[in-house]
Amino acid sequence: MVERNFHELVAAQWAQKKFLCVGLDSDFEKIPEAARIDGVRGTLVAFNRAIIDATKDLVCAYKPNSAFYEAHGDEGFTALRETVSYIHDQARDIPIILDAKRADIGNTNQGYVTSIFDHLRCDAVTVHPYLGAEAVRPFLDRKEKGVFVLCKTSNHGSAEFQDMDVGGEPLYKIVARHIVESWNNNGNCGVVAGATYPAELAAVRTIVGDMPILVPGVGAQGGDLESSVKAAKNSRGGGFIIAASRAVIFASERKDFAGAARAKAQELDGAIRNAL
Amino acid sequence: MVERNFHELVAAQWAQKKFLCVGLDSDFEKIPEAARIDGVRGTLVAFNRAIIDATKDLVCAYKPNSAFYEAHGDEGFTALRETVSYIHDQARDIPIILDAKRADIGNTNQGYVTSIFDHLRCDAVTVHPYLGAEAVRPFLDRKEKGVFVLCKTSNHGSAEFQDMDVGGEPLYKIVARHIVESWNNNGNCGVVAGATYPAELAAVRTIVGDMPILVPGVGAQGGDLESSVKAAKNSRGGGFIIAASRAVIFASERKDFAGAARAKAQELDGAIRNAL
Repeated sequence: MVERNFHELVAAQWAQKKFLCVGLDSDFEKIPEAARIDGVRGTLVAFNRAIIDATKDLVCAYKPNSAFYEAHGDEGFTALRETVSYIHDQARDIPIILDAKRADIGNTNQGYVTSIFDHLRCDAVTVHPYLGAEAVRPFLDRKEKGVFVLCKTSNHGSAEFQDMDVGGEPLYKIVARHIVESWNNNGNCGVVAGATYPAELAAVRTIVGDMPILVPGVGAQGGDLESSVKAAKNSRGGGFIIAASRAVIFASERKDFAGAARAKAQELDGAIRNAL
Repeated sequence: MVERNFHELVAAQWAQKKFLCVGLDSDFEKIPEAARIDGVRGTLVAFNRAIIDATKDLVCAYKPNSAFYEAHGDEGFTALRETVSYIHDQARDIPIILDAKRADIGNTNQGYVTSIFDHLRCDAVTVHPYLGAEAVRPFLDRKEKGVFVLCKTSNHGSAEFQDMDVGGEPLYKIVARHIVESWNNNGNCGVVAGATYPAELAAVRTIVGDMPILVPGVGAQGGDLESSVKAAKNSRGGGFIIAASRAVIFASERKDFAGAARAKAQELDGAIRNAL
């Protein structure tokens, strides 16, 4: 079996002008009554399936955030695995980014690599930069997978360290430069830069060239879509992933929550195309 | 039921001059034949039980690293939960630090908080600093739990960002200062500084005052125990946790692997006391 290649998968979607990524941040408490069946695991999977069925022709990627599954222990872990499996079966051309924000030292990361890429069968992951390239080598060594390094995050307190002046430049720019210059030997890196800081996003794009940028923070977090798209696109007019989670998957509490999610995804997809 | 308080639990061990933490980094591939029973989950739990039984009177904490359990998916997660449960039952005075190196944005962390503190019932956790205090507030808000922030890590590539000059000081010192000055409102923070860099560890101690320091990197990683203890102890001659993992738990492949683990833990405990 030929291993799935994240960058080929996402590039094929970009070629069709698809740049929206739906974040499967399936907070159990917020799942509409209509999607609830017996048990946590069943409900999480049923909800995700409905969202995937309703959006799979509109997206370039899915991005489950591990925290919402780990909150439910073994059951949640199983629900995450079954969700990924469903995407492999029903939307096989759509890559899956696990938003796990991992990074341990050296060989310890092998456990995360095995869990995320082999056990769960995700195509890409998000990682922290703080421990350096040497530490996250087990992730970087997986050439066919995507490794998105946190650079300028979307939260309102992200300036605390990320904007610190390091020799005349903010730390997030230094991080971006390191990713390009020494982390990306296998051509499998990307960076994360939030839609809530469009100027910083544009600065990151200038540094990373055509490298993929994952852009969270539109929708519920309030990032401006048009300015984010303009800041995020690369020299070929693509190379970015706009991630929206709550705004799409919890678009409605009605029985037709999936239809509402589709409508919201269509709206975002249209807005992204208009901004290109 | 009164909630377990990490800082009270560990302080009670320190009062007995116990500073060793055994890292339950139970890499399945390295578990001796004698500990293997049917299945991954059973083997992980049986091995950990044997190590816990053999060392519980010698340690101030246990520190399972989540990666070694996540590598086995749902089964691994269950094994981790059962291991923590065993410590609660059989070594109830010993706090459990989950080495998970987490940090997501804002409310997303709630999933990790629930998983680590409520579902798994750990007493403390390790977190990344890069997203800032605002992001990890859900961890910091749990007053009775311990939150150890990565500061100067033990890996040989940790200098890449951590030693960068920020206004005349390396970043790791700035991080340490922020932890003291603005992260620790609930008095539940600690920092992580590796034994592989004793001078940096001493610099961290100077900045953080009497705050707890978790010190990984002795044993297999080669950090010097004596200089680490001297650098790590606070004004009261305590306040630190020396974590050793592979050197203890995989001390021998023989049938009496647990006896060998105990002998190694006794050796380290003795060496720590001598260095005080």
